[in-house]
Amino acid sequence: MRLSNRMKNFKITVQYEGTRYQGWQRQESTEHTIQGKLEAILTKLCGTKIEVNGAGRTDAGVHAYGQVAHFHADTRLAAEEIMTYLNEYLPEDIAVIEIQEVPERFHSRLHAKGKTYCYRVLNSAVPHIFDRRYVLQETQKLDVEVMKKAAAALVGTHDFKSFTSAKKGKKTTVRTIEAITVERVGEEIRFTYQGDGFLYHMVRILTGTLLEIGVGKRDASSMPELLAAKDRAQAGYLVAAKGLTLLEVRYK
Amino acid sequence: MRLSNRMKNFKITVQYEGTRYQGWQRQESTEHTIQGKLEAILTKLCGTKIEVNGAGRTDAGVHAYGQVAHFHADTRLAAEEIMTYLNEYLPEDIAVIEIQEVPERFHSRLHAKGKTYCYRVLNSAVPHIFDRRYVLQETQKLDVEVMKKAAAALVGTHDFKSFTSAKKGKKTTVRTIEAITVERVGEEIRFTYQGDGFLYHMVRILTGTLLEIGVGKRDASSMPELLAAKDRAQAGYLVAAKGLTLLEVRYK
Repeated sequence: MRLSNRMKNFKITVQYEGTRYQGWQRQESTEHTIQGKLEAILTKLCGTKIEVNGAGRTDAGVHAYGQVAHFHADTRLAAEEIMTYLNEYLPEDIAVIEIQEVPERFHSRLHAKGKTYCYRVLNSAVPHIFDRRYVLQETQKLDVEVMKKAAAALVGTHDFKSFTSAKKGKKTTVRTIEAITVERVGEEIRFTYQGDGFLYHMVRILTGTLLEIGVGKRDASSMPELLAAKDRAQAGYLVAAKGLTLLEVRYK
Repeated sequence: MRLSNRMKNFKITVQYEGTRYQGWQRQESTEHTIQGKLEAILTKLCGTKIEVNGAGRTDAGVHAYGQVAHFHADTRLAAEEIMTYLNEYLPEDIAVIEIQEVPERFHSRLHAKGKTYCYRVLNSAVPHIFDRRYVLQETQKLDVEVMKKAAAALVGTHDFKSFTSAKKGKKTTVRTIEAITVERVGEEIRFTYQGDGFLYHMVRILTGTLLEIGVGKRDASSMPELLAAKDRAQAGYLVAAKGLTLLEVRYK
């Protein structure tokens, strides 16, 4: 007698280097998305179309240390077997580092309580070969203390409309940033943002604005005013995607 | 009046990711060598053929955190100007991280007192995306204590003939290893070798032999016997180049 399958829900933690990809989200025009790669392999494994839902989209070129996603599959396979199969067929710049069978109603995006992103800046005239795909190089001297002061003004619940490239819409641009740390690690400066959610391009525009403050092009005390302006044009530049990594998605 | 040039000798420290290259040494058949890239740019800059001499060759696929080389150039340019020019034109996986004008007789290879190499092994079934170009993945459990014990027997002055792929020749295969450390760093095991010099493939064969001991395929106490055998066929396998990095070359 053949054992009958049953619908299961799996939560996966995905690590990827974004360099070669058009971002997380599946697109009709290109195969080069993380979601697309995962779905293609799972669909082949399960024999029916599988949809993988991520906790959030990451843009083209952005990396993830611990992106979270979930998918439903009508399968007899155990979680570990699925993970092994995925890692066997995924390209070398994507890996599933954790898998777990979860209750049917678990949803990676709707149940996420927060995310942590890290932006890495190499503050040196000399390149660091081994990290070159993961850091932005800024040769001008950066004042960490002044950037810390400016970052403190961003913590809390604010309307971050000045800091998003999102087109005008009805959706709220209010978010809560729980913490921002700015720290020097060797020749690198790391910006870590912990919040309940982030708008389109928000972390990269926040970082670009902090960098302009760090080199003295903008005053640290201008931050409250900039938040109040709700005007993208007044904020700093959009820093390169390659310095950004989604560190983790938090639940419960 | 035009200032006359004078012959200068420059010592450079070079960092590179070896993945794309046929090793350090210039070859007629390929442009893809580190030495070749450096020489091409310097020759263009100086207007006369420049020869760059390295402290040692690294094989195809091997990385360097601090390879050292020197070159003579008939130039009015200061060291810093040459470094800036080099980093401007070098591909993104090679960088000059230090430059210094040195006495005319300084020779990077002849004056080197020792070298340090590191071999990185990821001892996990789950890949680490961001380090994948720099580590060898070994999914079998490795016993660090037993590998430490075996490594201790290699320290000192020995004939390392069993541990080289070099063809039979008149050159001595005696070398001195000053220290070997085997340590667990997270899920990684790092082998660090400090010695006066290393034979062709020596670090990779030593590591392959230690890994065979670590998984229990070979006894830790067999090391003295293996040294005495002076027979390559009795030693372990040649591990992949990508896990190996030349950390530094020591002088004086």
